Amino acid sequence: MSGVSVTPLTIVKVDENTSIYAEDFLAAEEPLEIRLGYGPAQNRVQKSISVTMRTPGNDFELAIGFLFTEGIIENSGQVASVKHCNGLNENVVRVALIDSLELDMSKLERNFYTTSSCGVCGKSSIDAVKTVCRLPKASADHLRFSAEMIYKLPELLRQKQKIFDHTGGLHGCGLFDANGSLLLAREDVGRHNALDKLIGAALQQGLFPLDKYLLLLSGRASFELIQKAYMAGIKIVAAVGAPSGLAVQMAADSDITLIGFLRGQRFNIYCGEQRISIKSYQSEVI
Amino acid sequence: MSGVSVTPLTIVKVDENTSIYAEDFLAAEEPLEIRLGYGPAQNRVQKSISVTMRTPGNDFELAIGFLFTEGIIENSGQVASVKHCNGLNENVVRVALIDSLELDMSKLERNFYTTSSCGVCGKSSIDAVKTVCRLPKASADHLRFSAEMIYKLPELLRQKQKIFDHTGGLHGCGLFDANGSLLLAREDVGRHNALDKLIGAALQQGLFPLDKYLLLLSGRASFELIQKAYMAGIKIVAAVGAPSGLAVQMAADSDITLIGFLRGQRFNIYCGEQRISIKSYQSEVI
Repeated sequence: MSGVSVTPLTIVKVDENTSIYAEDFLAAEEPLEIRLGYGPAQNRVQKSISVTMRTPGNDFELAIGFLFTEGIIENSGQVASVKHCNGLNENVVRVALIDSLELDMSKLERNFYTTSSCGVCGKSSIDAVKTVCRLPKASADHLRFSAEMIYKLPELLRQKQKIFDHTGGLHGCGLFDANGSLLLAREDVGRHNALDKLIGAALQQGLFPLDKYLLLLSGRASFELIQKAYMAGIKIVAAVGAPSGLAVQMAADSDITLIGFLRGQRFNIYCGEQRISIKSYQSEVI
Repeated sequence: MSGVSVTPLTIVKVDENTSIYAEDFLAAEEPLEIRLGYGPAQNRVQKSISVTMRTPGNDFELAIGFLFTEGIIENSGQVASVKHCNGLNENVVRVALIDSLELDMSKLERNFYTTSSCGVCGKSSIDAVKTVCRLPKASADHLRFSAEMIYKLPELLRQKQKIFDHTGGLHGCGLFDANGSLLLAREDVGRHNALDKLIGAALQQGLFPLDKYLLLLSGRASFELIQKAYMAGIKIVAAVGAPSGLAVQMAADSDITLIGFLRGQRFNIYCGEQRISIKSYQSEVI
């Protein structure tokens, strides 16, 4: 297993009553373990905190984005170093936090429990997520994106999805500004990983806060993705696929505009329609 | 939150330069916690072993299927009872195993670590999964499905996907026999949950072993899904979407026939093509 994103293979292509052998490319999928080093120098702790099946590539961004969307770090300045554990194994990333960052084990466990489970134990999923988010409240919100511009975004993202071109098999996500320019695009076999990679990259590139941008998802909008968008301060999420009920509830409760079924010259707005201008065809951030 | 699979909602439908308010339905997504009771009567242990975001419905099948595909139970006779923890909370399912089943905590933890992570720590993902599977080796394998019949399967599954009809937002999977009859269909916001539901239902309905059937997946074929199919003894998996590289490797190493991009009168065979008859248009189990 190496860090390549595409695997070549000979396959049988069947078409009506013919079959031929042909070269094909597959999206790679390998486990990534994220290990965290934290605490003061004299009492340093190392802990394996997550293993996810992911498409190799942008692993440092994935690790940073994961730590951020799980509420463990607030900014990239809290990261002292990110590296592969050794030269031979690209499936283990070690993130060292700065000595001065206080982070106790119980908090770490609560975070994971909170964001991946919750809701079952009395406190609702949405409330539980909200207690973890530490972003400052957004300033006055005059964000507007025009419908006409939004129609064009999926094609812009597809043009950037390099691995998808080869394999047809990946989830993608993209961050667009109010002029419809694609600032960042990431892809992965796991939709949550693609978004963690994008958020990690945005954090490292100093794009935060992300409240001026639109997040486009190539597939469905699940609760988990809206939760991650919320952690990053994103105010408009547009999905090519359908949203789930809990995703809409989370978006509505968090003042996020949620668009689904964005295909051709059509889409649905599930909440926050005030940020979408439909007839004027003007997009502006006042 | 109750156990309904569909959430009604008023949305804004945007189409070119018009927008209208309309009623819509969303796939519900709620957390499900699975708790396990095991050990002898005098020393009974209760433990929360999993929380997953799922579409409510078929929760008992999901819990049973999950325990099976994780290698914790080998058959439904090892389950003493399955119930909601109390009448008020349908998001917690408690599975009690029979007293005589020996199951120690460390095994439980190893199972989860094995199937969801592995590969990062020296032993490859595929080998790790294989050590967990305890199904008897399949008998002589003369399983054949014809290409002509396989072309028809996605439409048969779609006809059964009730929630998808309303929401357009769910992963589905179906189990077909060699006559092309759909025996079982399940759906969920999470593809792994849909398959656990299907396998749990098959286990409860006495359909095991599943080595006579074809498993159809409405989306992509990931490593995790092939792993679950392998645990259930399935020999042919067909996906409407793309497979990942590791999914193909797992299928090839496990003697599973893997088909991808099954759309219209076309598909790709990634491995195990001896089970697919292309020109004769005959399907038979000898």
